[in-house]
Amino acid sequence: MKLHGENMIGPRRTADGTETYRAVDPATDAELEPTFTDATESEIDAACRSALGASRAYAAVPAQTRAGFLRAIADQIEQLGDELVSRCVTETALPAARIVSERGRTTNQLRMFASLVEEGSWVDARIERPDAGRKPLPKPDMRRMLVPIGPVAVFGASNFPLAFSVAGGDTASALAAGNPVVVKAHPSHPGTSEMVGEAIVAAARESGMPDGVFSLVHGSSPRVGRSLVLHVAIRAVGFTGSHAAGRALFDAAAARPRPIPVYAEMGSVNPVVVLPGAAAERSQSVAQGLAASVTLGVGQFCTNPGVVFVPAEYAESFGRATADAVAAATGVMLNTRVCSAYTRTVGELRRRHDVSEVSSARDSAAAGAPGAAYAVPAVFGISSRAFVADGGLRVEVFGPATIVVSYDGIGELREAIESLDGQLTGTIHGNLDELAANRDLVDLLGERVGRLIFNGFPTGVEVCDAMNHGGPYPATTDVHFTSVGTAAILRFARPLCYQDFPADGLPEELADANPREILRRIDGEFTRDPV
Amino acid sequence: MKLHGENMIGPRRTADGTETYRAVDPATDAELEPTFTDATESEIDAACRSALGASRAYAAVPAQTRAGFLRAIADQIEQLGDELVSRCVTETALPAARIVSERGRTTNQLRMFASLVEEGSWVDARIERPDAGRKPLPKPDMRRMLVPIGPVAVFGASNFPLAFSVAGGDTASALAAGNPVVVKAHPSHPGTSEMVGEAIVAAARESGMPDGVFSLVHGSSPRVGRSLVLHVAIRAVGFTGSHAAGRALFDAAAARPRPIPVYAEMGSVNPVVVLPGAAAERSQSVAQGLAASVTLGVGQFCTNPGVVFVPAEYAESFGRATADAVAAATGVMLNTRVCSAYTRTVGELRRRHDVSEVSSARDSAAAGAPGAAYAVPAVFGISSRAFVADGGLRVEVFGPATIVVSYDGIGELREAIESLDGQLTGTIHGNLDELAANRDLVDLLGERVGRLIFNGFPTGVEVCDAMNHGGPYPATTDVHFTSVGTAAILRFARPLCYQDFPADGLPEELADANPREILRRIDGEFTRDPV
Repeated sequence: MKLHGENMIGPRRTADGTETYRAVDPATDAELEPTFTDATESEIDAACRSALGASRAYAAVPAQTRAGFLRAIADQIEQLGDELVSRCVTETALPAARIVSERGRTTNQLRMFASLVEEGSWVDARIERPDAGRKPLPKPDMRRMLVPIGPVAVFGASNFPLAFSVAGGDTASALAAGNPVVVKAHPSHPGTSEMVGEAIVAAARESGMPDGVFSLVHGSSPRVGRSLVLHVAIRAVGFTGSHAAGRALFDAAAARPRPIPVYAEMGSVNPVVVLPGAAAERSQSVAQGLAASVTLGVGQFCTNPGVVFVPAEYAESFGRATADAVAAATGVMLNTRVCSAYTRTVGELRRRHDVSEVSSARDSAAAGAPGAAYAVPAVFGISSRAFVADGGLRVEVFGPATIVVSYDGIGELREAIESLDGQLTGTIHGNLDELAANRDLVDLLGERVGRLIFNGFPTGVEVCDAMNHGGPYPATTDVHFTSVGTAAILRFARPLCYQDFPADGLPEELADANPREILRRIDGEFTRDPV
Repeated sequence: MKLHGENMIGPRRTADGTETYRAVDPATDAELEPTFTDATESEIDAACRSALGASRAYAAVPAQTRAGFLRAIADQIEQLGDELVSRCVTETALPAARIVSERGRTTNQLRMFASLVEEGSWVDARIERPDAGRKPLPKPDMRRMLVPIGPVAVFGASNFPLAFSVAGGDTASALAAGNPVVVKAHPSHPGTSEMVGEAIVAAARESGMPDGVFSLVHGSSPRVGRSLVLHVAIRAVGFTGSHAAGRALFDAAAARPRPIPVYAEMGSVNPVVVLPGAAAERSQSVAQGLAASVTLGVGQFCTNPGVVFVPAEYAESFGRATADAVAAATGVMLNTRVCSAYTRTVGELRRRHDVSEVSSARDSAAAGAPGAAYAVPAVFGISSRAFVADGGLRVEVFGPATIVVSYDGIGELREAIESLDGQLTGTIHGNLDELAANRDLVDLLGERVGRLIFNGFPTGVEVCDAMNHGGPYPATTDVHFTSVGTAAILRFARPLCYQDFPADGLPEELADANPREILRRIDGEFTRDPV
């Protein structure tokens, strides 16, 4: 498959602009073919108008057909075979096994949303029957369900070139809800993006979807993303990435004449709390598990555990065990930009007088780095008091680093937890007795996170109904929603109520017959029966 | 009951400030006793900190007890008896019968949320059981439910002194979800607000709720509302009122270091479409119904129908019939500010060369107004082409006025609908055949509204599971949510996921036993059974 490097406005390819870029192999610094062309303002406009133009036709596509389209995307991605894996490995330096597994997650997500849409109960149908005899006024016939929100802009994430990029969770859930999607490809893996984009276009064609259901624009310049978010046709935005970029998009969207929601998942420090009993019983095995979680994917996960609270008497040995376990896990990061940021932040920590480095300090050159994006894991130690005193220590370090915070008693631990901002996850290691005895600490942590984990680690985000991959700001810009799992579809739907509509004026989900037997709330009772 | 005019910080009363105001009887312009004192910055801070301080204890209150608290509020409001009705009538000029009926709606809403919380399925519990044998990785135990979002600020609305004020839908749904509430009383009915506030405080005391679960602050100055929205302890805001005020609060909340959601319901023009068949068959009766809807409550409803599209050949007679029917419905508005705004806007319409006045133009003095807030209904006529050409005609006129837009053919009607901004409601009058033949027009209107009504009128908002009182911007600032009906609770809750938690570390709603038999999704199946 020869890459063309062009923007994809529905099935049309265009490259009208003059701003161009190439992908770089982060393992070798080598520039890759071909040249990709940033979308011009008029190409962005064409993509968004094309999405708006397709929105009514796509919303009207029957659920089964929409599910077929999602499955066709999964099939088309699989048909890309090793070529996709190979390009993706070259662009991201992630190992082939990881890419293969991420491809599986991506196609599973698409098929999971296909099943969700086919089953149909996700629309939360609510029906209340009329009562002409009610006093003082007759009760009307009221029916309500979730309908598509309108064209969605999706930003590919650098750290999930498949599962959170062109056909990732945001796109899958937006398409599943019945919305056209305009994706901005992440410039860190544009070739991967183009291949997956072509897979979607092919699936749309074979499934008979309207042309504007999917577009892909390139943007190495922030102008492209900004213009996309500001476009009048766009109704919602899905984003996974840095806090700075996420907040900028959120601010731009909120300041629009007609504000739109931005679902930005911006990562967090994902605190891990080791309670005294767990420390006494299995400090070394917790350290091993933490090290594996910190270095997984060269530390490039939103759920990477960046801070671990350990009782003072165990902190030093815990830190050493963690440092020993991470030492071998050097690796190439996604691109030189994220690696420079990592190296800079680790350097800043290293220079602080209140922070001690537990791992042997080495820079990437000393470690024999084969490329500019080569990162060396780092483990730091600090006192709980110093941690609480400086908010700068509570900011995510994107990469394979973690800080061991030693606490002296539950009071100090409580203060440290209280100092935390919003998080995607919070983890507690403890035995059953101390979990029960410290219920208030669990609640304190629970107020600050989207997911609580007991005796485990936050990486490895299960894609399922019960997942919440979200959390209070700054973990995300909207605490109501998850970006992983079936509930992610709720971001891209809105309620619409039909009052006193005749039977054949209602959507199938709200009509009396209920041929698909979806679960509905009829006069307060949940049932799959017809009205 | 003697009114004190003070702020209520939980059960404490304070009046530290120097900015004061009095309520005014809009029917007579007379100032009423007592003097109310705007909250100072430190009083606002105390109210918000008190709410935050109460939030964990209140979130932990069992559902049955929380339901009892909501019912106790309803009881306490009823115990205020005629005194409440009388003060409310004096402050708002609304008739006693309306206030009595609005009180019924308010107490019904509180009891409806009590039942919802008691039944418990609203938390959308999702459970996925573990699978230690899954390859390549074991599947963890995943459980997720909705939990309280944290302290909520509620702004009382001038046009619903009971049902959307101190103990109205926002407060009821926020308390039901498990959040403390700080209400800013609307300065148009501060005495009513104080009485209802004291009812909530009494209910909180008798139900054993934590002190900070409810506070009430006065604010005749916009400073108070702004400070409330900017307070670090506040996690969400409920607001019903004007576009200018709602947007200002939304902008302030979005610009916070930690942004929070503002659920502002800002009204709309609520278009009514009369299709040719309906016009031919029953133009006069539609005009009668419209007139009643336009003048209900002196036109002071968010769902007041401000624009009606009528086929050109019927427009004139339809307009005349509407004008005749509204002529007698003069009335006193909520306060002189809303009445001046109404009079000014109607005057502007009157002076336009492309707008004709169908009703006999009279100002309030000519109509023998007994007070400054006396409003005279108005009916205007305009061509569809002129309506489409000027966005200024598509802005809500708060008061008893409506514009008859005459359209020449379905093409013109379509253009006019396409020109509309987001709306709370859209209404269609037609016969069954033309509804079926114009499905695309219904979809077009449906994209712009939160509720579609067939052969009815938008006023009279049913409080039920299936209601959606919301809609695309500028009708509201968040298209995902309703502010009326049980689904309003979803604004004030967020998902929290528990991974691999032991049985006794889980909230009751997620534990295996399911003693309250709530509906849960277990491994994808909806069931009330235990795990």
